[in-house]
Amino acid sequence: MDVKTEVLKKIKPSHEESEKVKRFVQQLLSVSKTVSGLDGVIVGSIGKFTWLAGDHDIDLFLMFDGSVPREELERLGLEYGKRIVQELGGKSSVKYAEHPYTSATIRGYDVDIVPCYRIKYGEKIKSAVDRSPLHLRHVLDYIKPAMIDEVRLLKQFCKGIGAYGSDAKNQGFSGYICELLVLQYGSFDAVISAAGVWKPPHIINTERHLGVPLHQFKDQPLVIIDPVDAGRNVAAVVNGENFMKFVTAAKNYSDRPSAGFFFPRPKKPLSALQFKSLQNRGTKFIAVRFSKPDIIDDILYPQLRRTMSRLVQLLEHHEFHVLRACEFAENQPTIIIELEVWSLPSVKKMTGPPIFSEKHTEEFLAKYSKGSVYVHDNRWVAEVQRKHKTAVSLVNDFLNAPPPVLAERGVPKYLAPLLTKKKAMEKEFWKLVKKDKPLSDYMRQKYFSGVVSESKAKAGKN
Amino acid sequence: MDVKTEVLKKIKPSHEESEKVKRFVQQLLSVSKTVSGLDGVIVGSIGKFTWLAGDHDIDLFLMFDGSVPREELERLGLEYGKRIVQELGGKSSVKYAEHPYTSATIRGYDVDIVPCYRIKYGEKIKSAVDRSPLHLRHVLDYIKPAMIDEVRLLKQFCKGIGAYGSDAKNQGFSGYICELLVLQYGSFDAVISAAGVWKPPHIINTERHLGVPLHQFKDQPLVIIDPVDAGRNVAAVVNGENFMKFVTAAKNYSDRPSAGFFFPRPKKPLSALQFKSLQNRGTKFIAVRFSKPDIIDDILYPQLRRTMSRLVQLLEHHEFHVLRACEFAENQPTIIIELEVWSLPSVKKMTGPPIFSEKHTEEFLAKYSKGSVYVHDNRWVAEVQRKHKTAVSLVNDFLNAPPPVLAERGVPKYLAPLLTKKKAMEKEFWKLVKKDKPLSDYMRQKYFSGVVSESKAKAGKN
Repeated sequence: MDVKTEVLKKIKPSHEESEKVKRFVQQLLSVSKTVSGLDGVIVGSIGKFTWLAGDHDIDLFLMFDGSVPREELERLGLEYGKRIVQELGGKSSVKYAEHPYTSATIRGYDVDIVPCYRIKYGEKIKSAVDRSPLHLRHVLDYIKPAMIDEVRLLKQFCKGIGAYGSDAKNQGFSGYICELLVLQYGSFDAVISAAGVWKPPHIINTERHLGVPLHQFKDQPLVIIDPVDAGRNVAAVVNGENFMKFVTAAKNYSDRPSAGFFFPRPKKPLSALQFKSLQNRGTKFIAVRFSKPDIIDDILYPQLRRTMSRLVQLLEHHEFHVLRACEFAENQPTIIIELEVWSLPSVKKMTGPPIFSEKHTEEFLAKYSKGSVYVHDNRWVAEVQRKHKTAVSLVNDFLNAPPPVLAERGVPKYLAPLLTKKKAMEKEFWKLVKKDKPLSDYMRQKYFSGVVSESKAKAGKN
Repeated sequence: MDVKTEVLKKIKPSHEESEKVKRFVQQLLSVSKTVSGLDGVIVGSIGKFTWLAGDHDIDLFLMFDGSVPREELERLGLEYGKRIVQELGGKSSVKYAEHPYTSATIRGYDVDIVPCYRIKYGEKIKSAVDRSPLHLRHVLDYIKPAMIDEVRLLKQFCKGIGAYGSDAKNQGFSGYICELLVLQYGSFDAVISAAGVWKPPHIINTERHLGVPLHQFKDQPLVIIDPVDAGRNVAAVVNGENFMKFVTAAKNYSDRPSAGFFFPRPKKPLSALQFKSLQNRGTKFIAVRFSKPDIIDDILYPQLRRTMSRLVQLLEHHEFHVLRACEFAENQPTIIIELEVWSLPSVKKMTGPPIFSEKHTEEFLAKYSKGSVYVHDNRWVAEVQRKHKTAVSLVNDFLNAPPPVLAERGVPKYLAPLLTKKKAMEKEFWKLVKKDKPLSDYMRQKYFSGVVSESKAKAGKN
């Protein structure tokens, strides 16, 4: 049995599953029409028939006319959503993205009911979700039946190499990207064979939109012009790490195809040897951990990363050199910082202006001449007492302030109240890693699977 | 008694001393004429009558005609020198500067007998020493009798603040500079009052030479155009530290004159408190010490400084941050380096090119892809094993090579044979400081008398 057949056996929904989902969707659409009188569409993988076995997240979009005011759309959207769910005997709650929507569980299916404006190709969108029905239309218009399994293979491949998901947490490949790639290249194999030699930035412009100002996509490794909106990069969220993971995995798969590429290694904590080798790096790990706020991952992760960047910047500014920093939020959000230099002398050297610069000399001497000042190589040098001799003391001092002050210092608003007066962990971090399996697995992934080496190792194993 | 009278009492040669020196000099010149048939001049402070009590270094220059070939000048210079010394019953030896000369002790006087070419104002010099007779001429032509004591005061002031001596070791003010400054301003007080507000670069062009291209004196804090050679800065050797010392001391003396400025504090080792406070800086001192080579200080010090710079550059390149470095050579030459970071993790982060740069990516991956490579913020990052985890191991490895290899690595030629296979001192450095009084005094000066604070403290004390 060839690799792809083997994989499809596992990921393609059975005839029975397909029929069951289709029946449910038809009923959902019919109830929706009755309740709202609006056209409804099922977007996402269910609507495009590209879903993977067992993956039944259903997105029902209710299409309002552009003349309906925004407030009215939000109010009616929630009202219709609630009634549709009631009608079908499910349980609903309200969730918030750009505007509120209904999230429900109906007979075991996760269903989101989202109001949007009906727009035409090229028309300006009114709310962030308005494009989805056009994406659906585009894929359904162009996809050939034989391509559906190819899309499934590509999605599963991205999952297997850990590059799937266009959410803020994963910053990887969305289902829509996989669909567009198969539309562009024709098959999974063709995508993989092409991607193996992609160099960033790789630009795909399926509709051959002319006059797209590409400089707007600067620093984005993968640019896929949205067929329904020439000004948008469908792959804007794909970061450099996931892009290179995909390219490297594609190259390695082409060299030596194997089912191993399609399935992520099971989560597992660091081995005793790996744990030891982390401790033996001779670096210092510190971590700041706090309780999980009640916000969605798409808000949590960006704020967590901004906080991490702020701490890294703070440390570097004070000459504590950071080797790596990473963010974890499977259970309790944790910022992990690995330091190259974490302890510094009590004396700090301030290199001042050249003695030839009169204005700067005056300023420098006004500031420092109470301490020890000397001239070296025609520059002023002052020695001052260092306030924070350790990285931990610096971080603790930074966090030791009420939330509004933390916000001023650059900690994003949802996290400031949770980080206020937190203390950085040192030795306790290792105890935590031993105890917290998801964190341990995260450390294993971060430290023991480089972009280049991972795929190689994997290819070698299968 | 006012400050200057008090100082002059100590530094002005007595009538008896003056007469004795003059008699000796007349005899020396007369013997020189008889032996060589050449005109001889006594240059330096003795020739200009500006010497300080007890300071009897006598420089006799034998003036050869420009038509005499260089080799002949050197041969005859040594021959005449030897015979003059014999005639006067002294002991002579040969020393080497740009060309060889006779160094002698005659009846307790240190006498150097140096051959030079007679040149005229503005004429191109043939050997480095040819200018000295013109300097003598210039000073004798313009100095007024009342200025002689003023020059003595200024010289002694420079000695007192530790800024005297135009040799490579001291990089300070020469006697000739002091003479020119008094000629320019008229008196010691006038020099001091003017210097208190000097800003670097301060330019003095006594002869109002026009068209001197000043950019040639870039980075020189004090520029005194040589009255006998418009292309030369008499103060080229004065470094920024000594310039600022002089300016600061002048300002402080103007505010509050005191005899204390004229006399260096007696040499003394670090106090127990100072010793402790050096150790409590939280830094790491390492030192490389070797036996003194048989070369003059004017060669030793520049080579010592170049070696020190090379070591500092080496350490910084390997991320061991240097706080201060200084060179000592009173007895055994010693390079002292104070480190802010002296120990680093076994893992080293190599930040590579942006993933967008194809050529550099290829080079980077070719070099590092065997180890751990990942992508962060759209850049390649590799982790490699650090070869030297401590500053000491790095320095020892650098020095662990035969002299020709050290020379290739940038260690100057006279020092390479002495530094080969040397080991840097760590703890032993402190033991050495305790034992070696001159070294201890040197550390005290370097660390407990900043440019700004020293003069202030001194002014306050007197």
